[in-house]
Amino acid sequence: MTTAKLNIVPFVSVDRMMKLVLAVGVERFLTELAGYIEDDFRRWELFDKTPRIASHSHDGVIELMPTSDGQLYGFKYVNGHPKNMRQGLQTVTAFGVLADVGSGYPMLLTEMTILTALRTAATSAVVARHLAPRGARTMAIIGNGAQSEFQAIAFKALTGVDRLRLYDIDRSASLKCARNLAGMGFDITICETGQEAVEGAEIITTVTADKQSATILTDNMVGSGVHINAVGGDCPGKTELHKDILLRSDIFVEFPPQTRIEGEIQQLESDHPVTELWQVIAGKTQGRRDAKQITLFDSVGFAIEDFSALRYVRDQLQATGLYEELDLLADPDEPRDLFGMLLRAAMQPAA
Amino acid sequence: MTTAKLNIVPFVSVDRMMKLVLAVGVERFLTELAGYIEDDFRRWELFDKTPRIASHSHDGVIELMPTSDGQLYGFKYVNGHPKNMRQGLQTVTAFGVLADVGSGYPMLLTEMTILTALRTAATSAVVARHLAPRGARTMAIIGNGAQSEFQAIAFKALTGVDRLRLYDIDRSASLKCARNLAGMGFDITICETGQEAVEGAEIITTVTADKQSATILTDNMVGSGVHINAVGGDCPGKTELHKDILLRSDIFVEFPPQTRIEGEIQQLESDHPVTELWQVIAGKTQGRRDAKQITLFDSVGFAIEDFSALRYVRDQLQATGLYEELDLLADPDEPRDLFGMLLRAAMQPAA
Repeated sequence: MTTAKLNIVPFVSVDRMMKLVLAVGVERFLTELAGYIEDDFRRWELFDKTPRIASHSHDGVIELMPTSDGQLYGFKYVNGHPKNMRQGLQTVTAFGVLADVGSGYPMLLTEMTILTALRTAATSAVVARHLAPRGARTMAIIGNGAQSEFQAIAFKALTGVDRLRLYDIDRSASLKCARNLAGMGFDITICETGQEAVEGAEIITTVTADKQSATILTDNMVGSGVHINAVGGDCPGKTELHKDILLRSDIFVEFPPQTRIEGEIQQLESDHPVTELWQVIAGKTQGRRDAKQITLFDSVGFAIEDFSALRYVRDQLQATGLYEELDLLADPDEPRDLFGMLLRAAMQPAA
Repeated sequence: MTTAKLNIVPFVSVDRMMKLVLAVGVERFLTELAGYIEDDFRRWELFDKTPRIASHSHDGVIELMPTSDGQLYGFKYVNGHPKNMRQGLQTVTAFGVLADVGSGYPMLLTEMTILTALRTAATSAVVARHLAPRGARTMAIIGNGAQSEFQAIAFKALTGVDRLRLYDIDRSASLKCARNLAGMGFDITICETGQEAVEGAEIITTVTADKQSATILTDNMVGSGVHINAVGGDCPGKTELHKDILLRSDIFVEFPPQTRIEGEIQQLESDHPVTELWQVIAGKTQGRRDAKQITLFDSVGFAIEDFSALRYVRDQLQATGLYEELDLLADPDEPRDLFGMLLRAAMQPAA
């Protein structure tokens, strides 16, 4: 147990998560988190890999994403409701729990809206280290919403990207992204079209929020040797790339059964060859083979990355103290006497 | 939304749950909760019924139990670790979340260890109203652990049981149960054997904690006309009743696909006839038909009962104020500017 008080579960609120990221530093947080993600990709085979459990409704989806490495158990609650934006609500909110497999006791409850943005960006950068062309410094980011700055900083910290070419159908989003990244060592160009954004880019990150199938990248926009980091397409019916790009690319995925439903490759036959990233990261197969190859990371986000993020946050608690104590678990003096605990509570003076 | 502050989710801690139960009164809480459970049994057909998602390990199991009625979504996290008791930990701990299907936003986070004990007892009493012999006043309770007092009080409040015959292999558990129930209007007899406990009982509640298959009731102990409320057997390999009793009984279950795996009926053929309780409660089929029939509620606990309990607790929040405000959801001023929210947090004076 992480605590002597058996009823207590450490809780990282949104406020504490922001303070934690700032205390550690965004670049260092992303770099260290990437290390946890790489570690878990390397031992991918021992994880319990359940597909996410989705509850679909007219306006969106609520999902539970559990996994376990046999020692720890984690799950994330996450919703996706595109209509929320119009009502001033977040499209996606998330929280998660890490628990001890041996006792079943939760060890951490944390916000995961911010944490998911960080783990998604860290995962993209981990993958790019294996797939992007050697020495790549220029990245196009198409879609400059909530995820864009995290992607930029993760790529800078982990791969050395320092030139950004930004494009969004809403120019104010690009301006917001550039403003947020000012003074962090990027050379930033705001572009008028997606075509302009990809000019000279060795890495193309697509991270738009369109719900429907869109064609953010057409075939003629993608030259040889490029690495595509396709983050935005992540549910059935939501894709960003033209099918012809997929057919020219070597495609790398997190967990094929999930990516075939949710990723860009939902546009392809169900037996189209893909490479599992864990095999690249564990050194069992090659990532980028040559300078002309187009590589594509068809990112959808998998429970094991959330698990890595939960582990990382848990490991920061002691040193930073950035958590609250949540009275979540009933702990009667005598385990069989739950009712007696209730009776004794009645005797306590009012707080 | 239940709150104007979009980042806030109401949280009912263990302490607040005890205060809530005491403020409402245990009998009234169980009675009102039973009403919510009956309402949800009546509209059983419209629920999304996913089997629980279990993560098994050497020492126990961690489960997520989600369900939805199309308007609200609920899930419970619950563990089962028989070894915990030896380390001074609870065998079972639980917490749960209620969320708005329309926005995907969580509306309530609550402890559910105490709440599960209450909903299990309330469900047993709701079922007994349809199955127990008319005018039954005497109940045997075999197994006098954490659930026993809740069962006794629920049956008193909802069915009029006021004579208890207690038996436990550990006599101190029976003494604890009798002591906790003192002054609540029960005539209590502590018995030396299970055989003695069932003498004259019109209702037999079995609620032992044995992990293995046990035979708490043998065939000769069960006379005609009795209602058996079998609560303790609730996972594969854990049963309480001799198979011959099952063969003489009319068996009522919550959700057949789950009960056939977890309940007493795991001892029977997979096509052995059972009656779904929602059909009895909704008036679509008969409960008890005659005075000689042996009825058996093979209780395992289903997600919809937790959903009813979450709804009930949510409806008590405003009037009682017995909750805390949890800063769980990121709420940037501009939904696309999650990173900007982080930057602005850095400008805030230290709290």
